[in-house]
Amino acid sequence: MPTLYDFQRAPSPRRARIVLAEKGIAHDTVQVDLGTQEQLGEVFRAINPACTVPALVLDGGAVLTDNAGIAAWAEAHQPEPPLLGRTALDKAEVASWNSRIEGECFMAIAEVLRNTAKGMVGRALPGPNDYAQIPELAERGRARLLHFLDRFEAHMTGREWVATGSFTLADITAGVALDFAAWVKVDANAGRPAITAWRARLAGRESFSL
Amino acid sequence: MPTLYDFQRAPSPRRARIVLAEKGIAHDTVQVDLGTQEQLGEVFRAINPACTVPALVLDGGAVLTDNAGIAAWAEAHQPEPPLLGRTALDKAEVASWNSRIEGECFMAIAEVLRNTAKGMVGRALPGPNDYAQIPELAERGRARLLHFLDRFEAHMTGREWVATGSFTLADITAGVALDFAAWVKVDANAGRPAITAWRARLAGRESFSL
Repeated sequence: MPTLYDFQRAPSPRRARIVLAEKGIAHDTVQVDLGTQEQLGEVFRAINPACTVPALVLDGGAVLTDNAGIAAWAEAHQPEPPLLGRTALDKAEVASWNSRIEGECFMAIAEVLRNTAKGMVGRALPGPNDYAQIPELAERGRARLLHFLDRFEAHMTGREWVATGSFTLADITAGVALDFAAWVKVDANAGRPAITAWRARLAGRESFSL
Repeated sequence: MPTLYDFQRAPSPRRARIVLAEKGIAHDTVQVDLGTQEQLGEVFRAINPACTVPALVLDGGAVLTDNAGIAAWAEAHQPEPPLLGRTALDKAEVASWNSRIEGECFMAIAEVLRNTAKGMVGRALPGPNDYAQIPELAERGRARLLHFLDRFEAHMTGREWVATGSFTLADITAGVALDFAAWVKVDANAGRPAITAWRARLAGRESFSL
């Protein structure tokens, strides 16, 4: 059975938890305590030299070291229900929205958090190398996030799901990202009725309680 | 026939050009002059509101607005030769390396370039919104790029291609990114024999002359 290296409170491994749950892929879970920087220790570094969670160790010993790899593997290993789209056009739409949400939303929130949090002084990026905080990058991240949310509200108006007519990986990435926005005191729902209605649909899925 | 909105000198649309060439997908090309900010004008904004190239307009009128969407569509539309891997594990490896190269290399170079170039004052990110340059982000980008290149050299040692045993999208993203590094005066080959040998293999492919 695969083993997911996880940290319950963090948004990135939550994406993998939800993917595995939606696919019904049984797995063991090991918590890696990011609070005590366990991800930088020898034991976890031997599993994932990138020192990030999620990481998924498969039965044969192969290690998937990020959400991109885990989602691609899960879709091919357990095709139903599809999370990456069925047709060529749907696959493009899911990939495109997933990428945009990662770059314009998830990353923007991370820029705010990692460049302001007292616990992240000298650790403004995840991974094995240390980087100093850049206060201007936190400000820019907040501006980018607010611009994205306005565009996303316009996109979601009249839509049920982020991409295609079905629930997909783009909903998972967006849902986790928008919950992550609360960490930097941005309420993505406030004044955005289409986002609010969509977030309520997500809340109806058991996987989003994970 | 699909139409690729392109800009000959820019690295991002080059990724799409190479994907379409490797797949043998015939298409028309329209140049969008980023040098005169044509991407921000009304005509192109109506095609891609994100104001970025590449964009690929399909026969039915659907618009693929980024490399993520174009690669996913091309793989499903024209499965042979596969660029995203054949097995579940190979698909994971390609997705993972593609994502890492985008985040740790392509983005790092863009951070250096966009936060230092005189022609990009006030335009430190692509897209419809203006952002000021952040000199510290350029410095951090250069440090990140050099860290990545050392890890990439170690990865490529003894390997023929970036991911799996075949040429894949990860080679395209990495090859374009490493040529892009020259824009910020970093020679990715210097002192890195495994990268140099792999780059020579890429140069043997007709698509890399595009």
